Amino acid sequence: MNIHAKRIKDLQYLLKQRKLDAMVITRALDTGFFTGYHMDDYLLLVSRDGAWAVAPQMFVEDLKVRAPFVEPVVPAGGFEATVQELCKKHKLRKTAFDPEYETYTRGLIWRKYGFTEQGGLTGSLRAIKEGEEAADLRKSCRIAARAFGLIKPRIKTGRTELSVYRELEDIMQDMGAKGPSFNLIVGFGPDSALPHHITSERKLKDNEAVLLDYGCVYNHYCSDITRTYFHGKPTEEFKKVYSIVARSQKAGLAAVRGGVSAMSVDKACRDVISDAGYGQYFIHGTGHGVGLEIHEFPRLNTKFEAVLRPGMAVTVEPGIYLHGKFGVRIEDSVLVTKTGCEILTKTA
Amino acid sequence: MNIHAKRIKDLQYLLKQRKLDAMVITRALDTGFFTGYHMDDYLLLVSRDGAWAVAPQMFVEDLKVRAPFVEPVVPAGGFEATVQELCKKHKLRKTAFDPEYETYTRGLIWRKYGFTEQGGLTGSLRAIKEGEEAADLRKSCRIAARAFGLIKPRIKTGRTELSVYRELEDIMQDMGAKGPSFNLIVGFGPDSALPHHITSERKLKDNEAVLLDYGCVYNHYCSDITRTYFHGKPTEEFKKVYSIVARSQKAGLAAVRGGVSAMSVDKACRDVISDAGYGQYFIHGTGHGVGLEIHEFPRLNTKFEAVLRPGMAVTVEPGIYLHGKFGVRIEDSVLVTKTGCEILTKTA
Repeated sequence: MNIHAKRIKDLQYLLKQRKLDAMVITRALDTGFFTGYHMDDYLLLVSRDGAWAVAPQMFVEDLKVRAPFVEPVVPAGGFEATVQELCKKHKLRKTAFDPEYETYTRGLIWRKYGFTEQGGLTGSLRAIKEGEEAADLRKSCRIAARAFGLIKPRIKTGRTELSVYRELEDIMQDMGAKGPSFNLIVGFGPDSALPHHITSERKLKDNEAVLLDYGCVYNHYCSDITRTYFHGKPTEEFKKVYSIVARSQKAGLAAVRGGVSAMSVDKACRDVISDAGYGQYFIHGTGHGVGLEIHEFPRLNTKFEAVLRPGMAVTVEPGIYLHGKFGVRIEDSVLVTKTGCEILTKTA
Repeated sequence: MNIHAKRIKDLQYLLKQRKLDAMVITRALDTGFFTGYHMDDYLLLVSRDGAWAVAPQMFVEDLKVRAPFVEPVVPAGGFEATVQELCKKHKLRKTAFDPEYETYTRGLIWRKYGFTEQGGLTGSLRAIKEGEEAADLRKSCRIAARAFGLIKPRIKTGRTELSVYRELEDIMQDMGAKGPSFNLIVGFGPDSALPHHITSERKLKDNEAVLLDYGCVYNHYCSDITRTYFHGKPTEEFKKVYSIVARSQKAGLAAVRGGVSAMSVDKACRDVISDAGYGQYFIHGTGHGVGLEIHEFPRLNTKFEAVLRPGMAVTVEPGIYLHGKFGVRIEDSVLVTKTGCEILTKTA
């Protein structure tokens, strides 16, 4: 069975489990996940035994070829009214929408139609990567990991962050990536101390930290990796901080396996850094799910409640940031397994 | 004054006009528009005489440098609760949120706090391009327009759509673009007849239509252009359809000026195509606003009510699609002026 047709079946199974008759899916990422047709401005209605794409006329021919398992319906009136008509026609009495991803305006319309709020269904399906999507994610991560070996020797004194950014993109595209998976971060010297630095025209000087936080999109799947190193002769402080972050990241990776809480992985990373006296400089969470979105369910931090399941893909990325001096972050994307994890972004 | 500081002033003026005390802004595109700090996961609260960025600790240093005209506030509890506290502290009794861009879940929280719904404020500010942003948009469009002259001679029999896609991206990046402004469409032969074709591994044959719908992002501003031509000796049918679309697009461009309705531009394009007997093959609207987003306010179609104002940037892009054969679309991005428009994507 086509993977997208299977995903609709999986959703239909969840509908039965949750005693829902149908679900309306409106976010482009989610409609693309279920149909393989990645496009804004169309809706899906999935019932226990049917699936309709409420879409403008100009999508119909393409939908028929790409997603023959959904029935295209061109709305006569509005999109929402057409969904309501389909529900009436097919006697779908309990139809759900996801309040986290629906706009307030449209949520009010669904409520007016008597639809119910039900979060997390598509998120939980999207969290587990299997078959082709695991393969695409692996490939996306492999491209990113290989790019590090290629770009590093080309980062020389005097080059700007933006020129490295662009070359990283090119290198990944040459290996088949569609593009970058987010606004890649290239930070030199003190710029490396800003976890969300915006890559600039800053030129690399001798004896500065270099931080590369980047990834690509391959067949819709995002990779995420960070490497930090010292350009020149590392200072004692850099060496010390680097080794703490490396130990922290290793501890985090060792903590990942099916059945553990996301928080326990954060704790494993955070404890190493706190014990070394740098707790206050680790100013973000340890990681996040990665897939069709660069940041998706679950989060790995001190608060987010979730259990890691085999097949989930997450990042492990502790860091220490010394403002005005340098920052160190080490990040890998990994696939959770029963007994541990598979590191997808291994570099030499 | 910094353009972002000015935009906040403009919003504060609108708040007074609408008798609002404050507005909470949550969409990344909008927070970036008002601060110049383009990043997910932080909120803005703008009152008539203040502006706060409710942001995680790791954004604070960067925000101070990039947006000194907003006061960073690190949330102790949740983001939403912190906004509510700020409202209480500063006696902001009537605070608005945009229901079109807020999630249903968060909209319910704002309503619980007593906030009111107010759509369109940021959209109306974003629609008018001025100063640096008009310059960035012009540059973005110029890069896209120049790319056509460079790519066209390289599109030869046997090349795949995706290889042209990638080269187009490279050409635009070499001219300073950050990346493509959307999933560029390269359609050969019958693929050109799908207005939202997904670029594929299809190889160009002799005597086929070539449609390129593409654009780039330059300093956050999106360009959008479509060119169609025949690779080889054009058929009589292609020549006929092309000349109708060209006349239609010319009529649309001639109809654009400050003060006219968006619908009247659509009508100008549509009448030419309908009069020529191809009305049923023009299966989409005539255009859309373009700026920080590739599709933004206003829309130019048969239903959307809006008046074009000098400074708005819109596309004019009629098309005729003969399924299984070929499609022709001609699109330019233009800046509305008092007396007409400035074509931003002029090609030789």
